[in-house]
Amino acid sequence: MKCRKCGQVAVINMRQHKLALCADHFTDWVPAQVEKSIRKYRMFTPRDRVLVAVSGGKDSLALWDVLLKLGYCADGLYLGLGIDGGFGYSDESQRKCEAFVKSVESGTLGIGKSGNQGAREARSPDSHSPDSQTPDPWLPKLHTLSIPATYGESIPEVAGRVQRGRGKPCSVCGLIKRHEMNRFAYELGYSVLATGHNLDDEAAVLFGNTMTWQVGYLARQGPVLPESDGFARKVKPLCRLYEREMAAYCLVRGIDYIYEECPYSFGATSIAHKELLAELERKSPGAKQNFYLSFLRAKENGFLNDHHQELSPLMHACERCGQPTTAPGLCAFCRLWVNVKI
Amino acid sequence: MKCRKCGQVAVINMRQHKLALCADHFTDWVPAQVEKSIRKYRMFTPRDRVLVAVSGGKDSLALWDVLLKLGYCADGLYLGLGIDGGFGYSDESQRKCEAFVKSVESGTLGIGKSGNQGAREARSPDSHSPDSQTPDPWLPKLHTLSIPATYGESIPEVAGRVQRGRGKPCSVCGLIKRHEMNRFAYELGYSVLATGHNLDDEAAVLFGNTMTWQVGYLARQGPVLPESDGFARKVKPLCRLYEREMAAYCLVRGIDYIYEECPYSFGATSIAHKELLAELERKSPGAKQNFYLSFLRAKENGFLNDHHQELSPLMHACERCGQPTTAPGLCAFCRLWVNVKI
Repeated sequence: MKCRKCGQVAVINMRQHKLALCADHFTDWVPAQVEKSIRKYRMFTPRDRVLVAVSGGKDSLALWDVLLKLGYCADGLYLGLGIDGGFGYSDESQRKCEAFVKSVESGTLGIGKSGNQGAREARSPDSHSPDSQTPDPWLPKLHTLSIPATYGESIPEVAGRVQRGRGKPCSVCGLIKRHEMNRFAYELGYSVLATGHNLDDEAAVLFGNTMTWQVGYLARQGPVLPESDGFARKVKPLCRLYEREMAAYCLVRGIDYIYEECPYSFGATSIAHKELLAELERKSPGAKQNFYLSFLRAKENGFLNDHHQELSPLMHACERCGQPTTAPGLCAFCRLWVNVKI
Repeated sequence: MKCRKCGQVAVINMRQHKLALCADHFTDWVPAQVEKSIRKYRMFTPRDRVLVAVSGGKDSLALWDVLLKLGYCADGLYLGLGIDGGFGYSDESQRKCEAFVKSVESGTLGIGKSGNQGAREARSPDSHSPDSQTPDPWLPKLHTLSIPATYGESIPEVAGRVQRGRGKPCSVCGLIKRHEMNRFAYELGYSVLATGHNLDDEAAVLFGNTMTWQVGYLARQGPVLPESDGFARKVKPLCRLYEREMAAYCLVRGIDYIYEECPYSFGATSIAHKELLAELERKSPGAKQNFYLSFLRAKENGFLNDHHQELSPLMHACERCGQPTTAPGLCAFCRLWVNVKI
């Protein structure tokens, strides 16, 4: 298999695009695809300060690398969840994020167009940023927050204590991550929160919501969740890239990431859905992409009535943390810690 | 496994309903389910004259049996397609339909509540029906129409001659069946055309339309397609029953049907979709039903914008057959026979 652009040996053959590329051209192709998504869905501009939620996995580290290459002002946020799983899952994940930042500092990763005026302005010491005192304002920063150190309990410990966590900690983990990422973005003045969800992730979520026609979720699912009072804008710049493309990107870029899945992800419904979609993709290359992108087009064309969204209950500020919530009194996050001294 | 109603040996265990039933209770349960669907989706009443499209397969013969048991006025229409497949597929199918009618005439099948006044009125010799001269107006009638005898060509022959039939005759076959069933219903004064599509069929079609978000098809898919100028109402009374339930129903009722699939159905996309849905159902009993019924609920609740339907091009009468069509001049059916002497 040869690269379509230069005839060198291809490192990846993307059947759904009928496109094989060599390492160099693939390394250019991925950021170009991400840039297309950023513009198509109006995710952000070089003047925005973007906070990338990094887990140490391939998608989020690749995303951070791509955004830096493209010249965006993008910092990272690593949330330490205190998950061990017998192999120090959380500690190892954090090390991968820290190693990535070191590679950026040494100039081997995340090198982008220098002189991107927008990103320079976004990082300017004059701009309203609590981070403006970092040694080199042009270098990206990795924020880390340990849930056990901050709240006194790891995710599995919280999950074991509350009703919501019965059986599996995933629901509690999602709740805590959403709350803390939003708090960080808001407190540190980031206008945009970017996550590494790829096409496989998005298609699997869409598949789950479609198999049960969860109209509320369907109306909200998309690559951009607009900002609203107290919530940062959330974007998914990798939403049109396959998982295997992101793995290949990390390989050719030399991004070291944690290969292990979260030890609690075993048996998740989303994994079963991913298997079914993989089967569909195997029979008909591009089926996964077509499923997700035709859904976005149908939404854009007004096919899905979002009056459910308009009818959603009014938000008010949580009495404890101030984040918007529909629950009376405390938000779901703060209710996790009622009667617990933090 | 014991029948939940009487404790006798069960013949079927329906995991999605958590319900096991003996032969007698299952034979009552199926018509009760069909009656529920007929009422829920307002398909027809005992005063309607219903034309059941029978293929000789399990679903359509079971449907006819159930409608007669329930006391509806239901006649059959068998379309001879001239498909052989090395085992006389069409001839054998017709024999199964004829044998079914004989069993009804001899009183072993299709026995319903006698004295259903609505159905009696619908069959009354005074009613406006070209069929009112049948020897016994209370007995159902099987209409047969041979495509080769009427149009001089079998389905595979037509398909082999026209652009639309390249590769597979299924598209041409569907077009011809829709046209002829509608013509029959219209000319013989039937207000409703009923087909044997079961839940597996409907879920597979829905799955296909959802995987590519075919908004036009999604907006129209449902158990009832309302009548419009020149088109009879189309209904699918088995839409909430699983395929295996229909097979079991035929078995316990002693309905003999053609086991073979149409020889051209091999490799159809709908079969691949059925396999994926079967996998989903295996992992989570009821998933298939939930997929289809939650879709219908979402539609009922106005989640899908059907403005696409409103924007559909205007219909006019075909210059040759008079059936409504959006194409200028001749309808798609009549265009099949241009330059062919019938």
